[in-house]
Amino acid sequence: MNIKRIVEDTDTKAGRIFDLFIQTLIIISLLSFAVETLPNLSSWIRSLLRWLETSIVIVFTIEYIIRVFVADVKLRYIISFYGLIDLFAILPFYVTTGIDLRSIRVFRLFRLFRSFKLLRYSKAMQRFRQAFIRVKEELIIFLIATAFLLYISAVGIYYFERSAQPDAFASVFHALWWAVATLTTVGYGDIYPVTVGGKIFTFVILMIGLGVIAVPTGLIAAALSETVDDTDK
Amino acid sequence: MNIKRIVEDTDTKAGRIFDLFIQTLIIISLLSFAVETLPNLSSWIRSLLRWLETSIVIVFTIEYIIRVFVADVKLRYIISFYGLIDLFAILPFYVTTGIDLRSIRVFRLFRLFRSFKLLRYSKAMQRFRQAFIRVKEELIIFLIATAFLLYISAVGIYYFERSAQPDAFASVFHALWWAVATLTTVGYGDIYPVTVGGKIFTFVILMIGLGVIAVPTGLIAAALSETVDDTDK
Amino acid sequence: MNIKRIVEDTDTKAGRIFDLFIQTLIIISLLSFAVETLPNLSSWIRSLLRWLETSIVIVFTIEYIIRVFVADVKLRYIISFYGLIDLFAILPFYVTTGIDLRSIRVFRLFRLFRSFKLLRYSKAMQRFRQAFIRVKEELIIFLIATAFLLYISAVGIYYFERSAQPDAFASVFHALWWAVATLTTVGYGDIYPVTVGGKIFTFVILMIGLGVIAVPTGLIAAALSETVDDTDK
Amino acid sequence: MNIKRIVEDTDTKAGRIFDLFIQTLIIISLLSFAVETLPNLSSWIRSLLRWLETSIVIVFTIEYIIRVFVADVKLRYIISFYGLIDLFAILPFYVTTGIDLRSIRVFRLFRLFRSFKLLRYSKAMQRFRQAFIRVKEELIIFLIATAFLLYISAVGIYYFERSAQPDAFASVFHALWWAVATLTTVGYGDIYPVTVGGKIFTFVILMIGLGVIAVPTGLIAAALSETVDDTDK
Repeated sequence: MNIKRIVEDTDTKAGRIFDLFIQTLIIISLLSFAVETLPNLSSWIRSLLRWLETSIVIVFTIEYIIRVFVADVKLRYIISFYGLIDLFAILPFYVTTGIDLRSIRVFRLFRLFRSFKLLRYSKAMQRFRQAFIRVKEELIIFLIATAFLLYISAVGIYYFERSAQPDAFASVFHALWWAVATLTTVGYGDIYPVTVGGKIFTFVILMIGLGVIAVPTGLIAAALSETVDDTDK
Repeated sequence: MNIKRIVEDTDTKAGRIFDLFIQTLIIISLLSFAVETLPNLSSWIRSLLRWLETSIVIVFTIEYIIRVFVADVKLRYIISFYGLIDLFAILPFYVTTGIDLRSIRVFRLFRLFRSFKLLRYSKAMQRFRQAFIRVKEELIIFLIATAFLLYISAVGIYYFERSAQPDAFASVFHALWWAVATLTTVGYGDIYPVTVGGKIFTFVILMIGLGVIAVPTGLIAAALSETVDDTDK
Repeated sequence: MNIKRIVEDTDTKAGRIFDLFIQTLIIISLLSFAVETLPNLSSWIRSLLRWLETSIVIVFTIEYIIRVFVADVKLRYIISFYGLIDLFAILPFYVTTGIDLRSIRVFRLFRLFRSFKLLRYSKAMQRFRQAFIRVKEELIIFLIATAFLLYISAVGIYYFERSAQPDAFASVFHALWWAVATLTTVGYGDIYPVTVGGKIFTFVILMIGLGVIAVPTGLIAAALSETVDDTDK
Repeated sequence: MNIKRIVEDTDTKAGRIFDLFIQTLIIISLLSFAVETLPNLSSWIRSLLRWLETSIVIVFTIEYIIRVFVADVKLRYIISFYGLIDLFAILPFYVTTGIDLRSIRVFRLFRLFRSFKLLRYSKAMQRFRQAFIRVKEELIIFLIATAFLLYISAVGIYYFERSAQPDAFASVFHALWWAVATLTTVGYGDIYPVTVGGKIFTFVILMIGLGVIAVPTGLIAAALSETVDDTDK
């Protein structure tokens, strides 16, 4: 009963320490994953990272076993969202051990599931989720409007620019990349209009697009501050 | 009477299924239009796309005939905004069949009208339209302010940069393209100031411009969330 | 008395027509100024533009004389903000006629004052001005914070990048140009950090800076919507 | 007692003049620091800057001595935040005089502390600080969400692009630089996806990311306008 409270709740001191410990391990694990991708690592660091990886997976495995053990309905935890994430966070390690090293790389991607574990442990994230749920419908409206706008932009610029830049604007899909980079105002500079018509079209679409693309930001900010107000009460 | 309700209303199950069916066809049609622009398509895919196009136009034609048939005042529907869009969505297909293939391309652009058909089918879009109507006057103010700001920016940078970069800043119109790319913060990097005066001017104009350009976003977000609140009541 | 009402007020039909006429002339004048800067204009168009310029200045001169004539206190109008703008909008034409053509160019810049004339004629602009006055104090706070942030950013990146890129980051002033382009998210791509330290510094400064730079936008949007609400009452 | 009021308070005329004098000196000092970094300065200007620097440090030293002298609890002022800043603003000058000139450079960075002195003198900054404190918790939520998003973006793009661009996307850390430049919409153009998968991933991550990254702006703007309202009452 005591272990159950420590693992599942955060209202005891031991529970909070347990949570903090697991969170720290997740962040270390994510950092070590990033460090591993660095080229020209010395074998000394590679050994350290492998040892770290093994240790963390052992802790996570013990945590998973305890969670299954203390769950009221064992199967329900196993097939729950967090249950699956907890499983996928350790599975790649066991699956890839003892197999040809090359094939590991693909499985490694699953190690990313570990970062999703953070979602459970941070209360802060829950507020964000609440805010997102609150404006879900509006965000869908925005997504439709954005998709519509991107399509129109891509077709328009394709007709204006394809004769002047046949490689950069080879198809509507190439033009879509331009539309994404332009309407989000990222503007890498790898693809941009050079014709007068294309430039005027870009201006018009930006005037319309900036208003549409930036709307969800305002909606989320409003929803989040309302969520915070509710929680404070 | 029954067909009329299915086609014109969405409060019956059959009506909603009909709407969803037409919407799906519109999206497939838009996607196939984009796919067609891809270079080096195999003849197999070209045939499939042509078959898809013909099928969809037939369905849209039947839909158009039914809509004319069930309309209370037939001419009123035909010359209405959506009536014309429904017509222009199928017209290019019939007009271009049997004519020299080259000239098709221009008419194809009209197929884009099909995407406007989505406007009718999605309730979500109506909210957006309401929000836009609500802040129409403010948006016009903003457009005047933006036009004013872009003009001043273009003339200013033209005087600062034309001697240093006579090609990039050849006229006020060339400078306008810089003003659009800069004040929207897209910043492709194809044209930017190199003189000290031009850089200081860019800084000043950005400090003023960011405040002006981004205002309509806030207005639309506010109007949209109010519209949503009204609808929820 | 009748002419006074037409020229100074917009509550009569004749007054509104007069305003619209002057506004149209201003916009034509601004456009012709931009067209004149185009290289390789035919002499035919140059003649047309010169004729247009002369006609518009004559109309503006007559308007200025009438305004002085109908003003209750003549000197008060002449030295008022709009009185000076009305004068500067016509003065360059008279000053530059008969003088060496080269020196005209500098005076031409004053023709831009004509665009300020639009300020008087558009009621819409008045709302913007009210909104700006409402948040004047907050905007000054923001300007101080922005100046502070830009300075810190420039000094920081200068220390990180000057050894790696001695030309691009030759001094704190060169680094300031980077700070402006980066914190406004324009990102032309003419100057960017290449060292690890510089990149981490850019990340930190962007996280802080985006919150500061974008604040006035929200303030103006809020003030503008409040101003609109007040006017509607 | 009189000197104490002048130095520590701003409710007397002498106090305000003293504050303005010190603030002006700080700004001159910051500007001279920037000017010093300019390459190819004439020896004439270098002498002037050195003289200016010495004069300002002398004034700041006198100010520091007076502040220690008038403080009720001397040690408390010395170890306070502003006390340390006042000390660090003058210390580098004394420490570096008479020592090898090369090593000066590092110490010079401390002169930047002088800009922090501005924090005390400007009431405007206090409002900003209040607004930040008000939304502190929400800003931490945002920072976690941003860190999470940047990590996911970097790992994702690393898998999509590393085979196509092994140099630009050499590790997850290289990809993080791309994630920072893209999600803040700066988009320098020094690093961008070229594969179809990478471009689609960029689109998805931007759609999610723009909503998250821009949220704190809205929160700060809201908090600041509330803070201003409270102060006005």
